[in-house]
Amino acid sequence: MKQVERWGLFEIAVKGPSAGNPFTEHHIEGAFTGAQETVRAEGFYDGDGVYRVRFMPSFEGEYRYEIAADFLVEPVNGAFTAVAPSGGNHGPVRVAKQYHFAYEDGTPYYSVGTTCYVWNHQSDVLIEETLKSLEAAGFNKLRFCVLPKHFDYNLHEPRSYPYEGTPMDSSVLTDDNYYDYTGDRGGNRFDKTRFNPEHFRHIEKCILALQGLGIEADLIMMHPYDRWGFSQMSHAEDALYWNYCVARFAAYRNVWWSLANEYDILKAKTLSDWEFYADVLVKKDPYRHLRSIHHCIYQYDYSRPWITHCSLQRPAQVAADYRTQFGKPVVLDEMSYEGDIPWPWGNITGEEMVRRFWEVAVRGGYPGHGETYLGHRADLNGRETDVLWWSHGRKLYGESWKRVRFLLDVMKQFPGHGLQPQRDMFNVSMAAPEGEFAEAKSAYLIYYGIMQPREGVVEIDRATPYRVELVDTWNMTVEDAGIHKGRFHIPMPGRQYMVLRLTRVDGQER
Amino acid sequence: MKQVERWGLFEIAVKGPSAGNPFTEHHIEGAFTGAQETVRAEGFYDGDGVYRVRFMPSFEGEYRYEIAADFLVEPVNGAFTAVAPSGGNHGPVRVAKQYHFAYEDGTPYYSVGTTCYVWNHQSDVLIEETLKSLEAAGFNKLRFCVLPKHFDYNLHEPRSYPYEGTPMDSSVLTDDNYYDYTGDRGGNRFDKTRFNPEHFRHIEKCILALQGLGIEADLIMMHPYDRWGFSQMSHAEDALYWNYCVARFAAYRNVWWSLANEYDILKAKTLSDWEFYADVLVKKDPYRHLRSIHHCIYQYDYSRPWITHCSLQRPAQVAADYRTQFGKPVVLDEMSYEGDIPWPWGNITGEEMVRRFWEVAVRGGYPGHGETYLGHRADLNGRETDVLWWSHGRKLYGESWKRVRFLLDVMKQFPGHGLQPQRDMFNVSMAAPEGEFAEAKSAYLIYYGIMQPREGVVEIDRATPYRVELVDTWNMTVEDAGIHKGRFHIPMPGRQYMVLRLTRVDGQER
Repeated sequence: MKQVERWGLFEIAVKGPSAGNPFTEHHIEGAFTGAQETVRAEGFYDGDGVYRVRFMPSFEGEYRYEIAADFLVEPVNGAFTAVAPSGGNHGPVRVAKQYHFAYEDGTPYYSVGTTCYVWNHQSDVLIEETLKSLEAAGFNKLRFCVLPKHFDYNLHEPRSYPYEGTPMDSSVLTDDNYYDYTGDRGGNRFDKTRFNPEHFRHIEKCILALQGLGIEADLIMMHPYDRWGFSQMSHAEDALYWNYCVARFAAYRNVWWSLANEYDILKAKTLSDWEFYADVLVKKDPYRHLRSIHHCIYQYDYSRPWITHCSLQRPAQVAADYRTQFGKPVVLDEMSYEGDIPWPWGNITGEEMVRRFWEVAVRGGYPGHGETYLGHRADLNGRETDVLWWSHGRKLYGESWKRVRFLLDVMKQFPGHGLQPQRDMFNVSMAAPEGEFAEAKSAYLIYYGIMQPREGVVEIDRATPYRVELVDTWNMTVEDAGIHKGRFHIPMPGRQYMVLRLTRVDGQER
Repeated sequence: MKQVERWGLFEIAVKGPSAGNPFTEHHIEGAFTGAQETVRAEGFYDGDGVYRVRFMPSFEGEYRYEIAADFLVEPVNGAFTAVAPSGGNHGPVRVAKQYHFAYEDGTPYYSVGTTCYVWNHQSDVLIEETLKSLEAAGFNKLRFCVLPKHFDYNLHEPRSYPYEGTPMDSSVLTDDNYYDYTGDRGGNRFDKTRFNPEHFRHIEKCILALQGLGIEADLIMMHPYDRWGFSQMSHAEDALYWNYCVARFAAYRNVWWSLANEYDILKAKTLSDWEFYADVLVKKDPYRHLRSIHHCIYQYDYSRPWITHCSLQRPAQVAADYRTQFGKPVVLDEMSYEGDIPWPWGNITGEEMVRRFWEVAVRGGYPGHGETYLGHRADLNGRETDVLWWSHGRKLYGESWKRVRFLLDVMKQFPGHGLQPQRDMFNVSMAAPEGEFAEAKSAYLIYYGIMQPREGVVEIDRATPYRVELVDTWNMTVEDAGIHKGRFHIPMPGRQYMVLRLTRVDGQER
């Protein structure tokens, strides 16, 4: 019998009609039944007369399946066994402890992601380099777009289009008209009822490559940076697109759904459109992957029940406020970019980016990295142009990415699962273990941010002894500062970006 | 005939009774009449049987005066001439153009102050050093306290007390009780109906010394950092104090009234107390010196008509918001301190302080400097202790004070009088000349703050040509970047803290 890992991808391919428009004229779906679940999943047409249905088993053991399609006289039946997951496979990421995340097997997941909007639309060579850079940095989430992107530094053609047809001639773009969020500039000839399966197969390769590196694929399903009209499709075209994507992508365990990047500047869409897309996900994704939506100016209502976590373009400091307001995990997916481009969101220093990482972390949220350094020219799809991590991936030139693993290590070493923001006095942020009662007082991180004191003055209470460590978040060092209780004064180096880490040592800690 | 400068100080001394309590039992006042004004001013007892009445003429020309007192059988009459002011004398500072300041002779005054809370309560040697440091830096306003201060790094005895009597023994203070805003700790023996005139004479010397350097004396009349009970006096004692201070200080042209530092943590006082003090100032200060009040957490209502300007302990960014809300000048008197002490408001870098200067300036407000570097030990009133600029004055050790003159120069060179905040997009702040209609487009300052772009992209309109200069606010350099119009790209160095200065050059500028 065929075997697939628990949380692996099981796929059945069926031959069917290729005449007419198989994307709209035929329907295929499967039912997958094991001892602990029965899952119905829709399939999709993959070109060349091949239809596929995919399934991700959530349990180990024997499964039976039955594939039905309008063009099948008899259902296709079969069986397979879901075996124990291999080493790096912990299942999909879920919300855990209300404000945090864990893989389905219970392993805590501390999200520190980055963004390469269209790394997947570049050449194979560039994609390989991006994967190496991601692995070197230790990021565990990547935001990127299913659809191609039209924006500064990104006016070239993508490697493929999602639909059959031909794009406009981009050489007609001028400095006056290239960037105005108008979508279709004319001259595009796409049939938005006929997908280009190769476009999607390639994205799946990218999702799998990330999965191999332990990186969650935060798929941006729609975005406004468009010259082809993909941001202005009709309701029927949208419905087709969303259903097709769910049928193709949902069985990959490392997928997250980001309904949009900057949804509020997709001028052709209304709130009811977004709620409709969410409804497709809720009804059609059998695995309930994480779902959120990202904004430019006008934030979405994160209290909507389908939204699993806040996905913010906001200052680092707001993490704790959003926890309070929405009672969900808070991911700061965009806090500006380390870089040197003119766009005002794209030119902070490495120090400032790392400061934002830590501000978010001690306020109980999860930070997102980004980089936009200019001046690193390379051959990109045959054209000399700038290659920026933020858009194309490839290489990291900044300083902040080097500090990601250290942050993750400190988060993992902290007792319990996740950080819970404590009192915040004049920008000194302090965190305790999530879910711990205040009287437990087992551990604290005190983050000094831009402050450069020569000593830290701490008082948790009069009696509890703490092992104190001085953590330099920029130089990535940890120094023992001894055991203290009561009100204690810890010598500090008069530099920025320091943390005091306190760990209770009287045997009363949980 | 006696002569005094316009806005100089004219004083009449009269012998009177010294028995009993001259501070409460006798009253003296004067009427001063010139061609353009008649002013009534209360006098005060200065000890040793001497009573004084002071007057500041607001016009040139001959004045007659008449001094009356309960102990004088006949009024004392006389005359003097107010002559033209000497070079550095421009009169008191007034609100100008709604959001800005000018001396009474019309000369614009761009406020960039600092704080040395009790420099005046230190030794003569230290005071001399402070004056030299103030002059070197170019500050034009100083905040300091009339009453002595009890706080960290400041537990020693002041050089004098405002009242007759003896203070508590400060050696009984412990780490547990020294700092709890309780005011009188016991053991103090002061008669709060009998002032110590020497205490006030000394402050007047300090006010005059500042006047000689062109520095406004922003007198903090009350504050909570107290172990003697001066923050908890009775209503009658307070009334006596406020009337005495107004009678002594109001005729000094460089005096500003700051009703309190952190009024909201003077636990013994209510809003009606503060309104009462304001009422004394409004009724008794004939010269209508600038009036404000400073807070810790709970801001005073700056819409109160007696308040001439906002005096804030707030982040730099709020300047424009407070302009909009209150329609008054906005002075950011406290934006944390450059330094390295543990207190979380006392340890930012020089770069961050200078950034805050400029953020405030381009948002149409006026910044205040502060410094709290530790580790510079000196003999202070005979005791070895730390001397911090913030409290004692003496020497500046930081980096931000060196950049004050450069900021003042840029403000003075800007067309018109004062900066008016313009659009603020993703933290790029922009200012135009105050009061200018938007269509005039005569000049702009664009401040990039923490951003480090390799080029600035600017578009005011399609047609107007501008001389563009690249201003480095940290290195204090100005480079010509040529004449440009339309949408233009200015190469920038990829460093933080830059300004683009635009000056219209088509002859249409105002």
